[in-house]
Amino acid sequence: MITLNDIEAASLRIAPYIVRTPVVRLPNMDKYLGCEVYAKAECLQVTGAFKVRGTMNKMLQMDREQLANGVVAASSGNHGKALSLAARMLGTKATIVIPDTAPDIKVNAIKALGAQVVRSTALERFEVADRIAKETGGIVVHPFNDEDIMAGQGTLGLEICQDMPGLDKVVVPVSGGGLIGGVATAVKEMCPDIKVIGAEPALLPRYTESFAAGEPVQVPQNPTMADALLANKPGALCFPQVRKYVDEMVCVSDEDLLRGAKLLLLEGHLLAEFSSAIGIGAVLAGKIKTSPKEKVCFVISGGSVDLPQLDRLRSVEI
Amino acid sequence: MITLNDIEAASLRIAPYIVRTPVVRLPNMDKYLGCEVYAKAECLQVTGAFKVRGTMNKMLQMDREQLANGVVAASSGNHGKALSLAARMLGTKATIVIPDTAPDIKVNAIKALGAQVVRSTALERFEVADRIAKETGGIVVHPFNDEDIMAGQGTLGLEICQDMPGLDKVVVPVSGGGLIGGVATAVKEMCPDIKVIGAEPALLPRYTESFAAGEPVQVPQNPTMADALLANKPGALCFPQVRKYVDEMVCVSDEDLLRGAKLLLLEGHLLAEFSSAIGIGAVLAGKIKTSPKEKVCFVISGGSVDLPQLDRLRSVEI
Repeated sequence: MITLNDIEAASLRIAPYIVRTPVVRLPNMDKYLGCEVYAKAECLQVTGAFKVRGTMNKMLQMDREQLANGVVAASSGNHGKALSLAARMLGTKATIVIPDTAPDIKVNAIKALGAQVVRSTALERFEVADRIAKETGGIVVHPFNDEDIMAGQGTLGLEICQDMPGLDKVVVPVSGGGLIGGVATAVKEMCPDIKVIGAEPALLPRYTESFAAGEPVQVPQNPTMADALLANKPGALCFPQVRKYVDEMVCVSDEDLLRGAKLLLLEGHLLAEFSSAIGIGAVLAGKIKTSPKEKVCFVISGGSVDLPQLDRLRSVEI
Repeated sequence: MITLNDIEAASLRIAPYIVRTPVVRLPNMDKYLGCEVYAKAECLQVTGAFKVRGTMNKMLQMDREQLANGVVAASSGNHGKALSLAARMLGTKATIVIPDTAPDIKVNAIKALGAQVVRSTALERFEVADRIAKETGGIVVHPFNDEDIMAGQGTLGLEICQDMPGLDKVVVPVSGGGLIGGVATAVKEMCPDIKVIGAEPALLPRYTESFAAGEPVQVPQNPTMADALLANKPGALCFPQVRKYVDEMVCVSDEDLLRGAKLLLLEGHLLAEFSSAIGIGAVLAGKIKTSPKEKVCFVISGGSVDLPQLDRLRSVEI
């Protein structure tokens, strides 16, 4: 288990390398969501997503010898991008295994950061990464099932509490649990009155099913438009953290996800990848209750999306 | 001429009604613009644009009798929306004259705020507004040529100086001069070392030509994609303010405007109306010089844009 201390240490460690993203007030979304709307805008982070917090916290704790052999990761995109940037900043190399389903914009961004890209299926990506690590002697950096990664992502929760201590709820997109594990730990330890709610794709309900089973279980790798939330099983290290600190977990359909993304873009004026809007979709779908005086902060986890993808938003009504 | 005192008074007056928008750091745009990029994100303002600062400052100084007859405005959209909201908050009615060229999203937003909408040509809109005011006894609130409006918009500059005193440059979109007149006054009086640069459409170079002539001159009402910057002549009250406080004025083509909007959306992750990206387009076009250590803040004045309009961004390269 990680602690608030780990997250505070990570915060000091990574500060020179990241942007302290703002918690922005988005009043034009209030009437749609029935509350005072805030967003932790990690789409404004370096590399366009929160992931660099974790990868920098991880790599800044490697020794010279470990760094020399480089790092390897399996990633739906943002983790790969963040690890590539961290590797470049620390003068070593990264090899990134990317699922076939990831949009070109993410692949090209990783290549532009100087990393080597290997394509794979979403299911096999972790095995492929392990094989490459054995061949090169590099260290595999897991996108979520790693305490240093989780502590790094938790710095985002620390900043939310420091900047907006009067919040009522924080809503976090959920995949393997690295982000929400860290964020929930920071938020509940610093501001126990704030409710932390996770939102995961209805097509990949790995936490909902694992909570019911009392242990991490694997769900079918259904395709979903939440292309940054593809984990089909909670991380073994993330699961106890999430179970201890998260108040509630909700499932969101792809259609509600797109409705959330459309609202965030047109009324919130933030361009985010569809996955990031899952919490907004959850409120639109009535899965999270709100009230007009409540201050609700949505973690907008990343912004990797391109213009052609936005066409999908035309087919849904907010 | 308005003073810093007028702007400080406006700031206190309007505070309960507006959002203090953040100055956000946009590191992913640095390599494109050759400087440290910041944005004053007024697209996150109530009604999605800075204009509510001016209309609230104006209407909060009207007496009960003046308010009772309602307000009238000629507007390309954002001013009308802001005046409609101000009227609704203060319990009176607004009649808004909108040019035929304004996008539907702006017209619908005004109707949704309870105002009456009258369509007109861009050229005749001020005459139509005057006629309606005579018929109804209402007060015409000009979108820029009004000292209370200018002082209200200036509060945005005040906030920039309070939140980011170490800036090197502030770049402001220019139309009639209400925004830049107020912002330049606040910035140069509070932080004289910050350079204030205006950017106007090359197709409507009303300030560039007026500076050359030494007095406000009217330019042809050319159509431009900068549909929030349609004024064809500087405001008589704005001109001396802009001439005194603005360091530099540059002209930007429609193509460079679109390049700026595309960069702001895809790398800055902010959805803004194309007009708002004119300063970014100016840097991309080499019209404003930058250097890597310079901190440059772009005023992103508004965010009224819809999905179909974004298709226009596909045809340009950043």
